[in-house]
Amino acid sequence: MNFASDNTAGIAPEILDAIIAANAGFAPGYGNDDTTRRVERKLCDIFEREVATFIAPTGTAANALGLAHITPPWGGVLCHAESHIVTDECGAPEFFGGGLKLIGLPGVGCKLAVDTLRAAINRYSGDRPHQVNAAALSLTQASEAGTIYRTHELAALCELAHAHGLKVQMDGARFANALVRLNASPAEVTWKAGVDVLAFGATKSGALAAEAIVFFDPAAAAFMGERRKRAGHLISKHRFLAAQFEAFLANDCWLRLACHANAMADRLAKNLTEVGRRPVWPVEANLVFVMLPKSLDSKLKSAGATYYSRHSDSLPDGLAIGPDQMLVRLVTSFATTAEEVDRFARLMTV
Amino acid sequence: MNFASDNTAGIAPEILDAIIAANAGFAPGYGNDDTTRRVERKLCDIFEREVATFIAPTGTAANALGLAHITPPWGGVLCHAESHIVTDECGAPEFFGGGLKLIGLPGVGCKLAVDTLRAAINRYSGDRPHQVNAAALSLTQASEAGTIYRTHELAALCELAHAHGLKVQMDGARFANALVRLNASPAEVTWKAGVDVLAFGATKSGALAAEAIVFFDPAAAAFMGERRKRAGHLISKHRFLAAQFEAFLANDCWLRLACHANAMADRLAKNLTEVGRRPVWPVEANLVFVMLPKSLDSKLKSAGATYYSRHSDSLPDGLAIGPDQMLVRLVTSFATTAEEVDRFARLMTV
Amino acid sequence: MNFASDNTAGIAPEILDAIIAANAGFAPGYGNDDTTRRVERKLCDIFEREVATFIAPTGTAANALGLAHITPPWGGVLCHAESHIVTDECGAPEFFGGGLKLIGLPGVGCKLAVDTLRAAINRYSGDRPHQVNAAALSLTQASEAGTIYRTHELAALCELAHAHGLKVQMDGARFANALVRLNASPAEVTWKAGVDVLAFGATKSGALAAEAIVFFDPAAAAFMGERRKRAGHLISKHRFLAAQFEAFLANDCWLRLACHANAMADRLAKNLTEVGRRPVWPVEANLVFVMLPKSLDSKLKSAGATYYSRHSDSLPDGLAIGPDQMLVRLVTSFATTAEEVDRFARLMTV
Amino acid sequence: MNFASDNTAGIAPEILDAIIAANAGFAPGYGNDDTTRRVERKLCDIFEREVATFIAPTGTAANALGLAHITPPWGGVLCHAESHIVTDECGAPEFFGGGLKLIGLPGVGCKLAVDTLRAAINRYSGDRPHQVNAAALSLTQASEAGTIYRTHELAALCELAHAHGLKVQMDGARFANALVRLNASPAEVTWKAGVDVLAFGATKSGALAAEAIVFFDPAAAAFMGERRKRAGHLISKHRFLAAQFEAFLANDCWLRLACHANAMADRLAKNLTEVGRRPVWPVEANLVFVMLPKSLDSKLKSAGATYYSRHSDSLPDGLAIGPDQMLVRLVTSFATTAEEVDRFARLMTV
Repeated sequence: MNFASDNTAGIAPEILDAIIAANAGFAPGYGNDDTTRRVERKLCDIFEREVATFIAPTGTAANALGLAHITPPWGGVLCHAESHIVTDECGAPEFFGGGLKLIGLPGVGCKLAVDTLRAAINRYSGDRPHQVNAAALSLTQASEAGTIYRTHELAALCELAHAHGLKVQMDGARFANALVRLNASPAEVTWKAGVDVLAFGATKSGALAAEAIVFFDPAAAAFMGERRKRAGHLISKHRFLAAQFEAFLANDCWLRLACHANAMADRLAKNLTEVGRRPVWPVEANLVFVMLPKSLDSKLKSAGATYYSRHSDSLPDGLAIGPDQMLVRLVTSFATTAEEVDRFARLMTV
Repeated sequence: MNFASDNTAGIAPEILDAIIAANAGFAPGYGNDDTTRRVERKLCDIFEREVATFIAPTGTAANALGLAHITPPWGGVLCHAESHIVTDECGAPEFFGGGLKLIGLPGVGCKLAVDTLRAAINRYSGDRPHQVNAAALSLTQASEAGTIYRTHELAALCELAHAHGLKVQMDGARFANALVRLNASPAEVTWKAGVDVLAFGATKSGALAAEAIVFFDPAAAAFMGERRKRAGHLISKHRFLAAQFEAFLANDCWLRLACHANAMADRLAKNLTEVGRRPVWPVEANLVFVMLPKSLDSKLKSAGATYYSRHSDSLPDGLAIGPDQMLVRLVTSFATTAEEVDRFARLMTV
Repeated sequence: MNFASDNTAGIAPEILDAIIAANAGFAPGYGNDDTTRRVERKLCDIFEREVATFIAPTGTAANALGLAHITPPWGGVLCHAESHIVTDECGAPEFFGGGLKLIGLPGVGCKLAVDTLRAAINRYSGDRPHQVNAAALSLTQASEAGTIYRTHELAALCELAHAHGLKVQMDGARFANALVRLNASPAEVTWKAGVDVLAFGATKSGALAAEAIVFFDPAAAAFMGERRKRAGHLISKHRFLAAQFEAFLANDCWLRLACHANAMADRLAKNLTEVGRRPVWPVEANLVFVMLPKSLDSKLKSAGATYYSRHSDSLPDGLAIGPDQMLVRLVTSFATTAEEVDRFARLMTV
Repeated sequence: MNFASDNTAGIAPEILDAIIAANAGFAPGYGNDDTTRRVERKLCDIFEREVATFIAPTGTAANALGLAHITPPWGGVLCHAESHIVTDECGAPEFFGGGLKLIGLPGVGCKLAVDTLRAAINRYSGDRPHQVNAAALSLTQASEAGTIYRTHELAALCELAHAHGLKVQMDGARFANALVRLNASPAEVTWKAGVDVLAFGATKSGALAAEAIVFFDPAAAAFMGERRKRAGHLISKHRFLAAQFEAFLANDCWLRLACHANAMADRLAKNLTEVGRRPVWPVEANLVFVMLPKSLDSKLKSAGATYYSRHSDSLPDGLAIGPDQMLVRLVTSFATTAEEVDRFARLMTV
């Protein structure tokens, strides 16, 4: 019953097999290998256009490298106040971006609304050169609350951003989990909706460590190789990163893995609802948030359940964490089984 | 006959097996797993003292993170002018170090002499706050020329550095190759000789991607976790980095792998010498440099040999690359076979 | 009727005379002159302890240099959300601080309350190394709203900050204006209350361009000279900065200039109150904020008044800027005359 | 007999008068005043084209801001190894440029030769993304040795740089001194020769603190306002910087001041040559370097002479500083008198 993070799972079998297979013989280092070329072409296919791809070993790197490439040091990045880049990356975007400023905005379910974005753009425009002006928008798909932006929501946000000269980055650490929930193609939920650069995560979905930074306008990626290298994120035996992505993307493996994780979250949500613990936010990816009495916590933990509690200012209207309550985050992954999910819910009823 | 780099080899079998074994079940992310703890303890054993260890996925990261932690942004790092940090990391030390300055010094065989260091310390001291003052010394062991510092040479350099307030970093991307050539313990060639922080490489020696930053004074590592995290170098599924190191260090695996690579370099050097192509520098690790007529190059390449040519200002006195010559770097690794080595040398005689 | 900023006034006569007098003969550059030595000693006298002083030409530099010296790149600076460092310095603290994070907090009248600070420290502590942890507190004295912290308020905030390991910086661009309102000595409202480093402004008070960064623990200022130099803020003909400060501090000139500016603000507040336009915040320094109908604005402007309108989320409870209103900031200075003040208020009644 | 630096002189009378005159009344801050507009237009006139101008208070800032604007963080700046940006700015270019690399090159008389530049461009091109590639060329006019580049020399260097995609910055801390020696217009020795951005110094020539960053392609200056602001180099009472420049440029004041300083250097060189102490480099600006026996030093100092000794690796062929000698730098300025010059030379003969 490990619901602590999708990072606590190991490597999906298809991906581990690919690492093993990639170990045959010699290959040029630093991304000059054939596997890397194939992954680059595969991503062009998946996104239905020429894209420029750079693989890095962590999501923090993928976010920070992408943001730094579209935001000048004197620019601001509009994003949700509880997004990963704000709360969990120890200032990586600021470091990579030469001191750029993350501007955290509110929004229920960790999603940004168009009105919120409009007000923020108005506020962080003008009064140059005194005020940091908004230069980019970062959207998390799926969000930290496990919610997802619909295609039309993305399009509206991106259109507004572009109309004011902002570039749009998407933190897609759980991009696959969002995609399989939407009735849309990868192209439709990214560049066709207006996303300029995507951090396309494989690690949380089942890779060892592999995240792709995808620029939908290859020209905008000029010198990204240098930026990645000097950040220490060009892996020398790059074939092993590429092999992970190749297996991840082959035969819809990534979609299958995400579907399983999401299905486990759905099952968990259903189970919890049935025992009177309805998730606080809609369960749309592989994250389930429930409010639990503190008294239940030790019981669950001693039964072997693992998870983290969270604070949030993004709860639905009228909801707050009571003094005897905790907001608990339950994460499912490709490795989660129906048995653990059912067992966890049963613990609540005993 | 792939002598292009020790990065073109794959993963040593022992290490790949460890990755596979580590894939069982769930484990806490971000280095909070048991394997990471064991590796930390193992490194204390190997170095015969308490050390603070941080694993990163690349040598560039390991060097830049370590250097940034011991050098203020206004400080200079004295190092060989042809060291990896100067020529091959695209400014990573400057980026991580907030604009610190690398000060490249000359030295035959890519080694620094005590007199050179003394003169540099004198030159880069004083005239504050106008002049960047030397704050650190970086030594590469084994060097880019495949030569190694003897224990007494290290001690003399470190003593001089410490006497003037400089900290000492060692780029040990090929630390194992150097160690097995010296009749000394890991402790003797590092902290006992005066090294403050070591980038201890496993990748070139046979890992997928794993480099340990080892602080010999754990107190000097305070907040290194933050520095690594915000650089995007804290791998979420950290157990897989730790597993690589655990296998690498277990049962003297690292020493065996390095001995093999060095033995192949020795054999190559012997073969080349016998056909009249004596290496330009002493072969002390897993690198062999020879001067070849350009006419031979295409023959070797078409026979399937892979290697890079290099420029160097660190040749022994009296030696220069003639107009029809090229300086060729041949790198051996754990995966190099005696057959390829012998075949390569035979190509020269035909 | 120029109430746009205290920056629109020129140089106070005493200070201009000092610049002229300093022009005699030659003097060593870069702060090695006698005048600089005298200013350093004078500041020790004024603050009743050994202090380390560094003069810079702008308040932005003084704030950013001081903050960068007490906050690591991975640290957060707690401050009011409408403080100058957040809204008006184009990311200078982030740039100087290698990507540190400013964490803006709410507070009526642009002042931070102890409870707000406590909650923020709790929120921005722990979860290392993922979360940026609070490392410093920045207080603006007088605040952007023209309010001031009482000595006991400063002491309570600093005590709380220190108890959690935070250093305290004070943005004293209008330090003189605050001081003359408090019945306290310079020492009492700075280091005796717990301030670690002060940006002590002279420019807004009447200098051409001179701000002193004052470290109350000289040891904490080690290498500040290097930090200032590499930021381009060590003025070569430094005697002219020192001369400004010497005249500013001599014979209580700074206190007199500030008293005049404050008196003009008081007079303006009284006038406005009499015509039914009570300032929105207490007038405690040289800033007066009033809510005006937009219809009045063009009348005032065409009569020759100069001022800026502002937005604020720090209004007293129950107050908001109506759709036909604007919040107007009126700044007085050493150069403001009673005539302009009275004329401005009269315009409202006609 | 103060020959220590042109920074030890005070403010030229014309410029001080302008500061005094600028003190009348109120003026908008931050460069929004009329004087700043006039200076901007005047510089367009002087350079015979539209230029974008930004005034900063120090030469270090002017150099670092300009270089950072034309060089990406992963780029290298080719420059003379003894240029001010390398030896005397404590890493300011690296700080402002996000970790860019200064690549110091040799050259007699602190000037770069075309062949040296060509070799450096070849060396620092390619091997991307591993090697820092040359992105800019910085030329010092007049040089640190007091020599100057002829117009055709500038043109040849800039043409070579541009042909390889490098931008060209000129450190013109002593631009006026160079210009008055050349039979050429300001346009001819800058943009017509290929210079992209100039740090046009007034401070060493007689201002209090004023340096203009001049972009010859205004489009290339986009967001320079932000870069300057966040570096703390936008002076609030900007009219006083602009007033310095206005007086400096009015009625050929700058040319007269430079002519005087140069004439004093010529006179000093002639005097020294007559007593057998021929300057080591051609005296082409306001710097005179002579080799003196150490025994003479204390005599000169006790007679009241002030100057610094220097080391240099840029001496003419065959010349070296003997064990009993010192290389002495003598700087003249607008404030130097013929009497001091003559007195200094006489001291050598007694």
